[in-house]
This record gives sequence, structure tokens and C-alpha cells, in this order.
Amino acid sequence: MKDETIILTGNNLTIEHIAKIACEGTKIKISEEAWKRVEDSRKLVFDLADSDIPIYGFTTGVGWNKDKRVFKEFFKQYNENLIHCHTLGVLPEASQKEVRAVMLARLNPLLLGATGIQPAIVNMYQNMLNFGVHPVLPERGSVGEGDITCLSHIGLAMIGEGEVYYNGNKMPASEALKKVGLKPVILGPKDGLAIVSSNALSAGQGALVVKEVKDLIKIADAIYALSLEGLNGNTSPLDAKVHEMRRFPGQIISARNMRAYLEGSYLWDKDRKPKALQDPLSYRGAANIHGSLRDALEYVEKYLLLHINTSDDNPCVMVKERRIESCSNFEVATWVTGFEMLGIMLSHVSKVSCYRTIKLSTPYFTNLPRFLSPADDVICYGTIQKVFVSLDSEIRHLSNNASSDYFSMAGDIEDHACNSVYVVQKTRKIVDDLVYILAIEAMHSSQAVDLRKNPNLGKGSKAVYKAIRSEIPFYDRDRNISEDIRKAYNIIKSGKMLKMLMASMME
Amino acid sequence: MKDETIILTGNNLTIEHIAKIACEGTKIKISEEAWKRVEDSRKLVFDLADSDIPIYGFTTGVGWNKDKRVFKEFFKQYNENLIHCHTLGVLPEASQKEVRAVMLARLNPLLLGATGIQPAIVNMYQNMLNFGVHPVLPERGSVGEGDITCLSHIGLAMIGEGEVYYNGNKMPASEALKKVGLKPVILGPKDGLAIVSSNALSAGQGALVVKEVKDLIKIADAIYALSLEGLNGNTSPLDAKVHEMRRFPGQIISARNMRAYLEGSYLWDKDRKPKALQDPLSYRGAANIHGSLRDALEYVEKYLLLHINTSDDNPCVMVKERRIESCSNFEVATWVTGFEMLGIMLSHVSKVSCYRTIKLSTPYFTNLPRFLSPADDVICYGTIQKVFVSLDSEIRHLSNNASSDYFSMAGDIEDHACNSVYVVQKTRKIVDDLVYILAIEAMHSSQAVDLRKNPNLGKGSKAVYKAIRSEIPFYDRDRNISEDIRKAYNIIKSGKMLKMLMASMME
Amino acid sequence: MKDETIILTGNNLTIEHIAKIACEGTKIKISEEAWKRVEDSRKLVFDLADSDIPIYGFTTGVGWNKDKRVFKEFFKQYNENLIHCHTLGVLPEASQKEVRAVMLARLNPLLLGATGIQPAIVNMYQNMLNFGVHPVLPERGSVGEGDITCLSHIGLAMIGEGEVYYNGNKMPASEALKKVGLKPVILGPKDGLAIVSSNALSAGQGALVVKEVKDLIKIADAIYALSLEGLNGNTSPLDAKVHEMRRFPGQIISARNMRAYLEGSYLWDKDRKPKALQDPLSYRGAANIHGSLRDALEYVEKYLLLHINTSDDNPCVMVKERRIESCSNFEVATWVTGFEMLGIMLSHVSKVSCYRTIKLSTPYFTNLPRFLSPADDVICYGTIQKVFVSLDSEIRHLSNNASSDYFSMAGDIEDHACNSVYVVQKTRKIVDDLVYILAIEAMHSSQAVDLRKNPNLGKGSKAVYKAIRSEIPFYDRDRNISEDIRKAYNIIKSGKMLKMLMASMME
Amino acid sequence: MKDETIILTGNNLTIEHIAKIACEGTKIKISEEAWKRVEDSRKLVFDLADSDIPIYGFTTGVGWNKDKRVFKEFFKQYNENLIHCHTLGVLPEASQKEVRAVMLARLNPLLLGATGIQPAIVNMYQNMLNFGVHPVLPERGSVGEGDITCLSHIGLAMIGEGEVYYNGNKMPASEALKKVGLKPVILGPKDGLAIVSSNALSAGQGALVVKEVKDLIKIADAIYALSLEGLNGNTSPLDAKVHEMRRFPGQIISARNMRAYLEGSYLWDKDRKPKALQDPLSYRGAANIHGSLRDALEYVEKYLLLHINTSDDNPCVMVKERRIESCSNFEVATWVTGFEMLGIMLSHVSKVSCYRTIKLSTPYFTNLPRFLSPADDVICYGTIQKVFVSLDSEIRHLSNNASSDYFSMAGDIEDHACNSVYVVQKTRKIVDDLVYILAIEAMHSSQAVDLRKNPNLGKGSKAVYKAIRSEIPFYDRDRNISEDIRKAYNIIKSGKMLKMLMASMME
Repeated sequence: MKDETIILTGNNLTIEHIAKIACEGTKIKISEEAWKRVEDSRKLVFDLADSDIPIYGFTTGVGWNKDKRVFKEFFKQYNENLIHCHTLGVLPEASQKEVRAVMLARLNPLLLGATGIQPAIVNMYQNMLNFGVHPVLPERGSVGEGDITCLSHIGLAMIGEGEVYYNGNKMPASEALKKVGLKPVILGPKDGLAIVSSNALSAGQGALVVKEVKDLIKIADAIYALSLEGLNGNTSPLDAKVHEMRRFPGQIISARNMRAYLEGSYLWDKDRKPKALQDPLSYRGAANIHGSLRDALEYVEKYLLLHINTSDDNPCVMVKERRIESCSNFEVATWVTGFEMLGIMLSHVSKVSCYRTIKLSTPYFTNLPRFLSPADDVICYGTIQKVFVSLDSEIRHLSNNASSDYFSMAGDIEDHACNSVYVVQKTRKIVDDLVYILAIEAMHSSQAVDLRKNPNLGKGSKAVYKAIRSEIPFYDRDRNISEDIRKAYNIIKSGKMLKMLMASMME
Repeated sequence: MKDETIILTGNNLTIEHIAKIACEGTKIKISEEAWKRVEDSRKLVFDLADSDIPIYGFTTGVGWNKDKRVFKEFFKQYNENLIHCHTLGVLPEASQKEVRAVMLARLNPLLLGATGIQPAIVNMYQNMLNFGVHPVLPERGSVGEGDITCLSHIGLAMIGEGEVYYNGNKMPASEALKKVGLKPVILGPKDGLAIVSSNALSAGQGALVVKEVKDLIKIADAIYALSLEGLNGNTSPLDAKVHEMRRFPGQIISARNMRAYLEGSYLWDKDRKPKALQDPLSYRGAANIHGSLRDALEYVEKYLLLHINTSDDNPCVMVKERRIESCSNFEVATWVTGFEMLGIMLSHVSKVSCYRTIKLSTPYFTNLPRFLSPADDVICYGTIQKVFVSLDSEIRHLSNNASSDYFSMAGDIEDHACNSVYVVQKTRKIVDDLVYILAIEAMHSSQAVDLRKNPNLGKGSKAVYKAIRSEIPFYDRDRNISEDIRKAYNIIKSGKMLKMLMASMME
Repeated sequence: MKDETIILTGNNLTIEHIAKIACEGTKIKISEEAWKRVEDSRKLVFDLADSDIPIYGFTTGVGWNKDKRVFKEFFKQYNENLIHCHTLGVLPEASQKEVRAVMLARLNPLLLGATGIQPAIVNMYQNMLNFGVHPVLPERGSVGEGDITCLSHIGLAMIGEGEVYYNGNKMPASEALKKVGLKPVILGPKDGLAIVSSNALSAGQGALVVKEVKDLIKIADAIYALSLEGLNGNTSPLDAKVHEMRRFPGQIISARNMRAYLEGSYLWDKDRKPKALQDPLSYRGAANIHGSLRDALEYVEKYLLLHINTSDDNPCVMVKERRIESCSNFEVATWVTGFEMLGIMLSHVSKVSCYRTIKLSTPYFTNLPRFLSPADDVICYGTIQKVFVSLDSEIRHLSNNASSDYFSMAGDIEDHACNSVYVVQKTRKIVDDLVYILAIEAMHSSQAVDLRKNPNLGKGSKAVYKAIRSEIPFYDRDRNISEDIRKAYNIIKSGKMLKMLMASMME
Repeated sequence: MKDETIILTGNNLTIEHIAKIACEGTKIKISEEAWKRVEDSRKLVFDLADSDIPIYGFTTGVGWNKDKRVFKEFFKQYNENLIHCHTLGVLPEASQKEVRAVMLARLNPLLLGATGIQPAIVNMYQNMLNFGVHPVLPERGSVGEGDITCLSHIGLAMIGEGEVYYNGNKMPASEALKKVGLKPVILGPKDGLAIVSSNALSAGQGALVVKEVKDLIKIADAIYALSLEGLNGNTSPLDAKVHEMRRFPGQIISARNMRAYLEGSYLWDKDRKPKALQDPLSYRGAANIHGSLRDALEYVEKYLLLHINTSDDNPCVMVKERRIESCSNFEVATWVTGFEMLGIMLSHVSKVSCYRTIKLSTPYFTNLPRFLSPADDVICYGTIQKVFVSLDSEIRHLSNNASSDYFSMAGDIEDHACNSVYVVQKTRKIVDDLVYILAIEAMHSSQAVDLRKNPNLGKGSKAVYKAIRSEIPFYDRDRNISEDIRKAYNIIKSGKMLKMLMASMME
């Protein structure tokens, strides 16, 4: 599977492609048409420059310095200067997976031929990705209208300066390039701008966040299924017809998944003792609320992919029309505000997970012992509510709008921004906190079904149970629970639970 | 046009229909199939109740009282009690237009036959709308999982209690019903729940907010066009090809509109004196940012309409399947978080409008006098920036997430909520503030083109200019500007500017 | 009492003075020393102007126009222009009480002689207040570094333009002035600036908010006392020693009040049936949490009064030193961020009130019927939780920071702002919502003690009970509860409950 | 200096003490009276328990389990269980300095004798601090009404389980205790609760945040002074008299500092070329705004110290009165909402620092080259604005209220929370971001005075300049600026700049 190579065309990258290339190291290859577009685009830029039309970032400075002229004899120097003084990233560093996603998110749109970049640099992206040379990339410092302050760190490595990770070690870029047999690039006109003027940082990190949410929503559906078994709850709110009548796409999928995960569960037995007429909304409405997360995610994924598969360059080189136009295609408000919505929806999913967990500790709802305690002298989950509640509060706090705060900059020329990078990073944090919250829910629901003396579990919910119990034993006497939490978190974070879930559904 | 009647089927209402019925008083008529569904649904509920299946809100209490039995002989009493003690709305009152939209948003889903309501009540909605009898509806007090605390006020009027507006006067409901020849309804089983258990308040008010944003975004595009003329700015960022390459649907539409509005403008003249190489982002990126608002709006409109054209009833009556199921189809997180996103996008549109206005006051960008002052001894717009900046701050503040704050209620059964009502109402406030901000932009751009000695304006931008100048003269000496602001606000708010704009494009 | 006259000195105004003058119409009189300072200050400004030192807003323009010279012969014209073009307020209007507080908050600092204003204008403030001539004052449009856009409306009335309220009627300012025998003022140098350049709008409105919170915290303590009786809760957390040991000033006061309000209550009876070992935190911690509100309030009151009793003028006239200096004493971040803290504390007080109310509806905690229902067929407070929860969510939303959002304005000279006006107004809204929430708590606790068959109540808690029952009877069968809520709200809002409480403590 | 020993009495710890003990390893010694109180308190608890009064957490369970009885023979087991199952902290770990501050914040109130803890455990706190044995302390997972989920990790180490840091290495607690010659404690009755039931995590971390802000505000004042020299700005807003008249304590101190830091500066020269009549507010109002931060800080420091010097135990043991009372002295809303206010004030200070920096890059204000570029072909600080603007946006986002979000927990007994831990930690993050922002301001102001050809600098501002130039040379040609930023950040963060500043003022 790792031998497969993904062909890049500039316009058909999916979230799954990005995850494979970024996280699994899948190799890439640029398609022939794409190469042609890159070359045509470069040629056009030179042709136009020869005809003395001032071209932003090519024969002129950038930003407020757009009124300054750049002369041919200084192209290399000017572009190196530009890389140097744009190298402005603030710690912490992006992870290496993220750096790969970021480079890919820059490379792909280059293949559309709207940039006019030097083809050798395009090749450099491809080679660094395929050889595993990952520039050190501080992830803060961009307001996200172009992540120019951070992407410069990639440019720095390309010209053989700064540092990179290679084979797990941090080293000078020049050394790593040598090791893999690459030569630093020589910057020509517009190349500096072409490297930095892109939203690839937020787009690349964002793509991995989207991937994580796509996976996590499946996990959430499956953990819900186990919790419903822990509660001995009603399955009627999962009724297919009920959701079809409502026609919201997300809830139809979540309800379908939940039913599938519960296939074979004791919950469907007709002769079980009577249940409550209606369960709390955190149970009854789970398919709807998780479904709303799917709806929001679908919006974000659609527009983020549109971003990654079109060019956000300014100026925009139009090869067919033989024109270069100043534009604002680096504006990303559509999907950045989508991420804001996504964060808010994650806050809702977090809340219902927390409430489900609280219910599992409450005898009134479960007819099980308080705090799922296995015996009278065991305190068990009496205090753990503070943990997930505090994490939920973090999520709530992070879910406030962060996209529309900025200053007018660069001599009042840059008077709009989206904080795309920060918005993506706060969403990443929200997702990480939610992993903890769902992990604790799974700990509770596993304990609850154990206390029910292991009735038949559903196909998928059993996989959740097994994943938890593969590392965390039944809680029989008081122990350091923080270790259980960390394990449960890792079982989800590492993908282990998802893998077991998917495998169980394939049987 | 007012003689037209809109046929309600339960599943094909549009925002434009709602606006017509709510704001223009267009009459409605329920389709025959719809009537049949309503009747079949009512019959089914009775059949099932006879077979002794407990039905939530029919033979049982609601909420935490679901464990209580309701007996046949007390149906009327119980349902009146239910209406009475659910009458919990808090001031201020919804406008009459809004009340109409709310009643319509409740009526339409009833027509799908998923409620089991008494047909006479369905008829009552129709009649009250057609006769213009509008219950007094306090608009606060709902957490939006079912606006049961507010919709009860409509039920109250239907049974001849409480107050209504009729022909512009507030009067007892009983009196108004008499005037139009209607008799109060007699509540039967489930009717109380059927009237209140719906999100019609947020959905109805939300539909009018969506309508207002749909109109306002056209206005924003047109005012931008006039501001670009005020600035003597670049048209290249409106280039069709540039936006097509980016493929984001909203920006393609906004750019197209802007080009159309600028048809005939002096900005396209080749021989104008040279402009800046790149304008500030608030100008250069306007099509993109306004376009992102269109993208967000498209999401909200799609799902809000899905809501209004499907049933949010619990329990859900399925006539074909002859079943009633407990469900959570009143969960509205998809479109409520969509409104959150919409509010954030409106904040961005507000910011760029503000920045465009500031630029128009700045000689560095316009080569016009500071603050667009017509003469040395006139202070003109020297202080007005505080006004729109303070309104923009309100918008920023309101754009924070308000949907995921709630308590667990009703004996911990109701442990999820969306605050749909408040979210919609804060969005309504955001939109209203934005009307002021755009109004002030239009005042500036009109003054700017006047100071440019009236060059040729575009088809649409000229309409904006004329709308402003129809009530607000050129600023030639210092005067009470708050009156100008109020006039400009009303020119937009009343629809006058849109009407003039649309007319101009039809010529 | 109304015959009393409050002497204004410029430096010893209290919140209680402001409330009396603003809300009760108490007359004012300017002290002699104050008059002398005003006159000396005016004289100094003229002296310095004669010596040809440029004085901001006197011989120069204001804001970005500070580079413009104003010549003597145009003083009147320039200052009228300034008033005109600063008249920029946006609706809604401030209440008349608020307008009085605003005028007072402007007048008082003028008496310190740091302004250099024309004495006749000082007199005009005094006269308009004493005659009850209240300019129409739109309350929005200021970013709060100087509420210049709004205070201009007061200046407008002073020169006989615009509108005012007089004897409850809106009329032209010129007409009202004539009625009371006043002549419009003739503006001299610096007078325009002196009228508008002040934070009197936020300070005046803020003072009334502080007054309302000071009163409301007493009400909250007393309602808590009644709720504790409704719950049959523990009094041990009110133990004086416990709070003394903690030494936080607010909680010591609240606990003392609560004990006093409970004097004579059945709760102190030794032979009552046993209670829970510890009550929920909303009860157990009420003195602490209400006390924290007192701590926050003390901070706000201290600094707001410091503001009102010192000069926020720029430039600052120093009579003794015979100098005028440019300064930033209009910066108000200390007390504006204090209001932000106050809003957050009010959110906490709101939450514990809500939770107390929920407990009163929960048999597990009260051993009373669910939802305090008086009989099996009465639904009672089954749905009302949605009402206060939704209002609490509003409060939560409003409690986010609104003070640090602004644009750089006026040619980038005005690059700081506090949004003091909006912050005060959102706090006013928070307080109003909290009145509803406490009102509903009082409705519940009154019902609870009734269901306990009227045990002996405390001195203060009985007053709360009586205030509620003076208009709202025992809930014996289901009725329109929204009317009860409105009444209970008014009982608090109007001051009736406080008056009855204070009277009861005097007996 | 390090040999000094600080005597702990329970009631006179200062922020400076805490910083010394936590950050510099200063030894502690418990006073004799304190010991006596501890012993008396322990004795009383046993006496009362003997008389069969149920004592929360001693003879009963905690939280919802307060209805459970704990019998003498199980004291050790029960208390170990309690520690185990309360061990719930979530990563990341607190720093070792913070762990020390946390232990101290728990130890000090124990000395008041309100806890009834076993004296051997008190001794253990002292010994671990003096020997430098620092439990691994995950810093998340508490809602801050008692940081019981995290402080348990300290208890765990005390009983010889879990991990600690010792001499820079992570190792099992048992191993470290052995190395320093300590034996694990044997838990007796109430000891488990006594260890965990405290707000020491937030109080300890909070104390270090307060210390950092106290230092940083001096730095901010000094950097401002250098920026004023960079701008060639007006000193008149620093006039002592102007601030005295206003009487706000913070601004009087900041203005005094600023004047002192500017002693000897060229700015005071009478014969300098004329300046602008009024500088932008970020300069003119700096003393006021920095002063407001001092005002807010004074509130926080006062109440945080009150917290640390009184007992937050529940139940509260009163030795003199020979009573134990249930209470809520662990409620911390006063100082937690104080931290919220502090965060908001830091946001204002951040904003004015950013605006000052932007001004330094703007020729209109400085008459220096654009972006402080030393030569035409050097781009210099053309892009760095994005860096500090993005960090300021983080601060803005973090400054929203996070204290009033929580769930009702533990069987609805714990229905209030403050999120004190998260609030403190977000404030810590705000402060860290502000260090970057001020660091970048200092880079700019140093460059600006260099471009002014090194005029005479003030005593304090020169120290700032020298601190920067000690590691960061004049920007003469384009280079990787991210390294400069990191250095400048470290110069402040490490205390180097403060030390140089203080030294310069002593000369």
C-alpha cells in the first residue's frame, strides 16, 4: 500500500490523499499536463515582464513596497532578501506530518499554472516530500491572508538555509539536502513571492484537522452506541424512517451508522425489561447532533478542497488569456468561517458526550450503582466529571469567533484578515480535547456494560468496548485514573479504536 | 400581485414565499393532499391511542412529567392547562411580520401529517393569517428545542384568550376572532403539544433574517461599486476569469454583480489618470469577501428551508407505517450553527465596509480632501468614524458563539439546547447594525463622487447614488449628521435602495 | 425630601447623589469655590491664547484637523460647526433619567476648572437639570474615548437646536428653553470641544447601572434567604466566624445580610427534621458568590466615582500652574474593564440563582412536589426553566469582552478605545436580565414556602414573600405564567421589593 | 541571598515570597505558632469525631457520597482510595517552578489550623519543597472549586506512588523520597480530602502569573519610553501634575516610571525640531493605559494573596470555637473574575504596543524610512506586523470570559464553578504572547533610535536599548527575523531586560 504513488494534477486532491501523503509518507508524482502548465506559466511571466508591464512581486516590491521597482540584475538578491525578512514564524513548531500537508497544499495549486514560479522550485517541493526532508516550521505569526511569515521557512530550507527534520533528526537544511542529493534552488524573479504568498499553512493543517474530525465522528457514533447499551436506552430514535422524513443528510448517516454499530445488541431484544419512555436528549438526539456535525463538516471539507485545488495566487497568471491580474483569491473567509462553525458544532457534540457520561454515573437513569462503582468501598468515577467538564469549558471558550480580529497593516493596504491559521489551530485543540471527552465516555460505557454482566453488544459497540478493554481493565478497585484517561485517549488518538471498529464492521 | 394566493403543500415553501406572506400579507391556501395528510394523521393517533400504546403528549404528560398518565375525560382540560402554563414568553414582542412568519413556519410542517393535530387548528392558522389576526408574541424565553414557551402565546389566542393585533390595534383575542367571524378552537388530545412543540419562532424569525441578508448582500455589492468610483479604484479584481479560476460560487456571483453595477462607469475609461497598482484589500477583496457571505448564506438558507419543509415534531407520526416514534427531529444545530457562521461572516463584511469608508476619508488613497470636506472651513466627516466603528464592535461582540450555553433541565431529561431563538435574534441585530454601516459607506461614496465632479457612474452604482441623494443633499456645510445617518439607514431598511437598484438594472 | 438641594463641588459626588438627581429630580446648586475655579480657568485660557500658544480645540481644529488653525473671528461659527458635525448619535434614545445622569456626569468635572469652558454653559447644565429640560440623546455611536458623537446632542439643545423632552413631551429645544425662560448659549472658543469631549455618556449611564447593582445585590441576598427556606436548607454556611476567617469583604457582608434577613426563620429551629449534610453549592456558596459580586462592584464604584470627581478633559487646564497640557485623561480602561468583570460576576450570580430555582422544583432536594405543583393535575413550573436558562445564556453571551475591539481612526491618531458606552449598556442589559432571573427564583421560593404550609419566615425573607404575594397569588391551577413573570419583574424593577425589604429590617 | 529562609506563618505570604521560593529555591521554615495551630486543629477533629458528629470527609464520603459512612478501621484504605481515584490530571505538566508554588499555596493555609490535617503531612510539604522533590503534576482537569483532580498527584507522591522530578530527572516518587531520606506518609482520617480539597493549583500558578505581570508592566513602561524616543514624541502627557489631577493610582505610577526611565533623554531638549501637537493615543495615553493594568493587577494581587493567606478548606475547623462547619470558602470568584479583568486589560496593553510599533514603521509619524529600513534595497520590517497582529488576535480571543461555563456535577450538588485553573492558564498564555509583542516593539524602537543616529537616551530606555543590542545587532541587511524575535523574547522572558533596567535606575 505504501508503494502506491499519488499523481498530482492540481485539481483533484482529496482529504484522504492529503492524509496519506502527509501521515503515511505516500509518494507523489506530478502529472505531465501539470508540468506543462507550470512551464507555460513561467514563460508567460517573462514575456510580459519583457514588455515592461509592472508585475507585482516580479518587477515590483510587495505590500506597501509595491511602489518600488526591482531590477533584473537584483532578482536573486531581492528574492533572497524577501525570503529572509519574511522568515518570521513564532514557536511552537508544526509537526512533521503537518509540514508535509503544508508543502503539499502549496505544491498542488502551483500545478495549475497561475503562479509563474520557476519549475525547479516545483520540483523541489516534490523531491523534499518524497525524500522526507521537512523544514522546521514555526506555526504562529500569520494573520492568514497569505501565510507569508511562516511559509518563508520552507523557502529558507529550499535555498539551503535554516533547519529541517530528516529521518527524525533536526539538522541544517544544507546538510539534509546533500544527504538526499538535492541542490538548493537559485531564486529567480517572483519566486520568493510564489513560495510565501499562499495560505498553505492553514490549508495544510486544516486538511489534517478535517481528516481527524471525519474519523472522530465515526468514533463518536460508535461510542454513543456503547453508551446506549450502558444506559439500556431506547433505539427508537435511531429509526431510519424518522430520519428520512427529516432529510438532513448528516443525521441520516449517523443514525444509519449507529444502527449498524448496534447490530446484534441486546437493546433490540423485545423481552428486555421496560425502559424509560424517552431518554435524555443527549441520547435521544445523538444521531441528530452528531449529524449536524457531519453537515458542518461537509461544508468545510467542500470549500477547503476547493481552496487546495484552485490557485490562491496574487497576482494571478492566466496562461490562456496571456494576462496577469492583481486579485484577492487569497481571501479564505468561506472556509475559515466554516471552521468557526465546525468548532461550535464540536462544542455541541462535546456537551452531549459529557451529559451522556454523567447519566451513566447516575442510578436514576441506569439502575446501576452510583458512579458505576463495582462495590461499596470503591469510589470509582466520583470525581472524574470535573475532568471532562473542564475540558468542555476549554472547548466552549475556544469556540468563540477568532476570525474577525485584526489590525489594518502595511500602510493600511492590508485591511482585511481571517486569522485562518489561528482558527485552524484552535479547532485542532478543540478536536484534541474532544478526544479526551469521548475517551472518558467510552471508559464509562465499558464499565456500565460490565456492570450489566456483559449483555450482547452490537457489532460496532463491541469493537469500542474491546478497544478500551485491550488496555484498561474493569475498574474493580480505586486506582490512578489519570493513567486510564491517557490510555483511552491514545486508543482513539492513535487510530486503534477506529481500526478495530472498521474491522468489526467488515466481518 | 397582492391578489395572488400561495398554495401550501408542506414541502416547497421558499424564503421568498415566506417574505411575501409575512411582509406583504399574501394570502395562503392549503393544498388538498396536505389536508388529506392532516386528517389521516389525526385518525392514526386516535387509532393507536385506542390500542392502549402510551403516546407522548397525548396520553402522557410532557417533559419530566412523561411518566404521568392523561385520561380521555381530561383531554381538553389538560391541553388548556398545558397551553396556560407554557405561556412563558418574555418581552419584547416580535413584530407582526415576524408573528406571521412564525405562524407560517408552524403551519407548513403540520401539512406533512407527522403531527396528529386536530384539523380545525390547522385551519385556524390559515384563517388567522388570512384575516390578519396576529397574536401578541413575546420573543424571549425559549432555549430553542421547541420554542414551547413562546408558541403557547399563539395557542392562547386560538382558544380565545390573551391578546392579538388586528388592523394595527392590540385587543383581546376573543374580540378579534369575533370581528373576523372565527370561533376559538376546542383543544383535543395532543393539540397543546402540537401547537407549542416546534421551532417555529426561530425558524420564522430566521427566515426573515435570511431574506434581509439576501437583499442586503446585493446592496453591499452595489454600494461597494459606488465606493470604488469614489476611490477611483481598480476594476481588475472584478475580472470574471480571475473568479472563475477560483470556483468559489459566492465570489463569482458578487463579482458579476459588481461588474454589472459598474456598467458604464468612468472607471473603465482607458485614459483616466493612473491608479494605485493595488488597492487596499477592503476594495480589492470585496467580491471575495461578499462572496463568502453568499456561501455562508447559501448553507443557512438550504438547511433552514429543509427545516421548514419537513416536520420537527416529537413524537413523529408516520402515517404510512402506522407508527408513532419518539424522536429528536426538533434538534436544529445544523442551521443554528449556520447562523453563527453567518454572523461571523457579516462581521467580516462589516469590517471591510468600515475600512472602505475610512479610505474614502483619507487623501492618501483618494486625492480628495480629508474627510471629504467640501471646503476648508467645513469639518464634514471628521468624527463619523466613531459611529460605524462602535457599531462594528457591537457586531464583533455579538458574533461570539451563543448556541452552546445551556443548563440541563426538566429533571435532566433536556440536556441539550441550541438557543436557536437568541442566535437568530442576535443575527437580526447584527444585520440591522450592518445596515447602518453600509448606509454610512453610501453617504461617503456619494460625497466622494460629488467631489470628483460627477463622473459617469455605473448603472447600479448610480442607483445607489440617486437613492442617497433623493433624501440627503450634498454635504456643503456642517449640519446634524445623525439625521443623515437615520435617513440613509431608512433608505436601505425600507427597501427603497434595493428597489431603485433593481429598477436600474432592468432598464 | 425632594426639597433638598445637592451642592456640587466637583469632587464629592456619590452614586447615591447621582441616583437622586437623575431619578428623583433632586435640585442641584454649584458651590462658590467651584464657580471661582470655572471662572479662573476660563480666564487662563484666554490669557494663554493671547500669548499665541496654539491650544488644541481652541485655536486649532480637533482630531486629525489639529493642524488647522481657528481664528478668533470664526470662534462662534467654528464651535457651532463642531457641534453640528459631531451630532452623530444612533438610536435608541437614552432614558430621561439617564440623560440627567449624563449631564450631571459632565457638569461635575467642569467644576474643577480644568476645562476652560464658558461659565454660562456651566450654568446651562445646572438650569436644564433643575428645570427638567432633557435633550433627546441617541445612545449609540461612541467608541468611548470621549463620547463626543453623542454629547453633541446636548450641545445642540443648548444652542437652541434639536429636540428635548420637557414635562414628558418631546419638543424643539428652542421651545422648551423659552418655556422655562432660558436663552440658548452663544458658543465661544473651546466651548464646542468642552461640551463634547467627555465620557459623560458612559459615566452617567454607568453610575445608574452601579446603583441598580447595589440595590439588586441586596435583593439577591434576600431572595436567597427565602429560597433557603423553600429548600429547608442549612444555615451553617452563613456562620459569621466562617466568613470572618476568610476575610473577603463582600462575603462577610452578604452572609451578615442573609443572617439578618433570616432572623426569626424556622430554619434556625433545632427540632426540625434532619437536613442534608451539605446543600448544593448554589445554596451553600451563595454568600461567597454574592460576596464576590460585592467585591467586583466595590472596584467599579470606586473608580467610576473617581472618574466623575476628576476631570477627563483634554487638553487639561491647570489654573495654579497657569498651563494647558495635552493629555489622555479621557482614557477609561480602569473602570471599563471593571464593568467587564462586573458583567462576568453577574453571570455567576445568575447561574447560582438559576440552579437554586431548579433545585426548588426537584423533589430529591425539597421533598416537595415536582415543579412545586400544588396538585396532581396541575403542571405548574414544568416549563419555566427554559425561560431563565435562556436569559442566563444571554447574560453569558454578553459577558464576553467587548472593550478591546476598535479600529484605528482619525488618520491613525486615535488608535485606542474602550467601547465604554457599549460595555456599560451591555452591563445594563445583563442586570435587566438578572432581574427576571431573580424574579423567577422569588416566584419559586414563595410557592415552596406556601407548599411547606407557611412556616415562620425570616424578617427579610418574609418581606420578599410578601412583595411577591402582593401581586401574584399562590399557584393553585395552571395559568398564563408570563404575566406572573412580568409582575415579579416589575416588583423588583420598580424598587417595591427593596422598599418592603428595607422597611421590614427597620421594624 | 539564597541562604535566606522564609518563615511561613500562614498569613503573611507575599507574591515576592512565593516567587523566591518557587523560582529561586529559597528554603522555608514553618513558625512555631503555626505548628501549634496545626496540632490543635488535628486534635479537635479527633475529639469531635469521637463525639459521633458526622464530619464531612472524615467520617463521611465526599461529594455525592457524603451520605456514606467511613469507619475508623478503614481510614487509611479510604483515604488512599480517595487519593487514587482523584488522581485525574490531564497533560500537559505544570512546570517545576509552578509545582513549587502550588505546594506552597497549599501549605501556607494549612498553617492556619482550619484543616485538621495530620501534622506529618504538613511536614512533608515543607520537606519536599526544601529538598526539591517535585511531583509530576498534570495541569488540566480541574473546574477549580477545589483543584482536587490535580492536587491528588501531589498526595500520590507523598504516599510514595507516582512520579516526581528530582534534580532535573523524572523518577518514581518512592525513589526520590528515599534519596532525600523521607518516608512516605501514612494517611489518616480526613488527610486525603485535606490534600486535595484546595485551590492551590490555580492559586499557585496564579501567583506566578501575577509576578510576571508585575515585572512585565515595568518592562512595558520602559519599552514605551524607548519607543517615544524612536518616534521623537511629546513628553507632555507624562506631566506629573496632569496625572495627579486624575488621581487614578496606576497611571500616576506608570507616568512617574516613564519620566524616570526618560531621565536624560534628548526628548526633553528644548531646541529639538518641532513635534506633532498631539501624538497618537498609543503614545499619548500609554501611561494611562499601562496604569489601568496596574489598577487591575492591584485588585488581583490583593485578593489572590488574601486567598493564599486564609483557609479555603471545607469543612472549616475552628479551633477556638471547637466547631467544624460546612462552608464554601473554596469559592474563588472574586479573584478569578479579577484574572478575567486582568486578561482584558492585557489585551488593551497589547493593542497599544502593537499600534506604537506600527507607528514606528510609518514615515508620516517618524520622518524615518518606511519599515525602519536602513537602505533602499533592504526590506526590513515590512512583514513583521503580521506577527504581532496575529499574537494580539490570540490575546483578544483568550480575553473572552471562560469562568462561567460549567455543568452541574456530582448528583447536582456541585452546581457552581469558576474554572479558576483554566482562567489562570489562559492568562499565563496572554502574558507570554504579550512578551513577544513587547519584544517586537523593543526591536523597532531600538532600530528607530539607531536610525536617528543615537541621540541621548533616557536612563531606563537606554537599558532597554542595550538589552536588545546585547544580542541583536542593528538591522543593516535582510536576515531571518524569526531568530531576532526569539532572542528579544528571551531577553524579556529570562528577566535579563528587567535586571538591566533596574540596575540602570540604581546607578
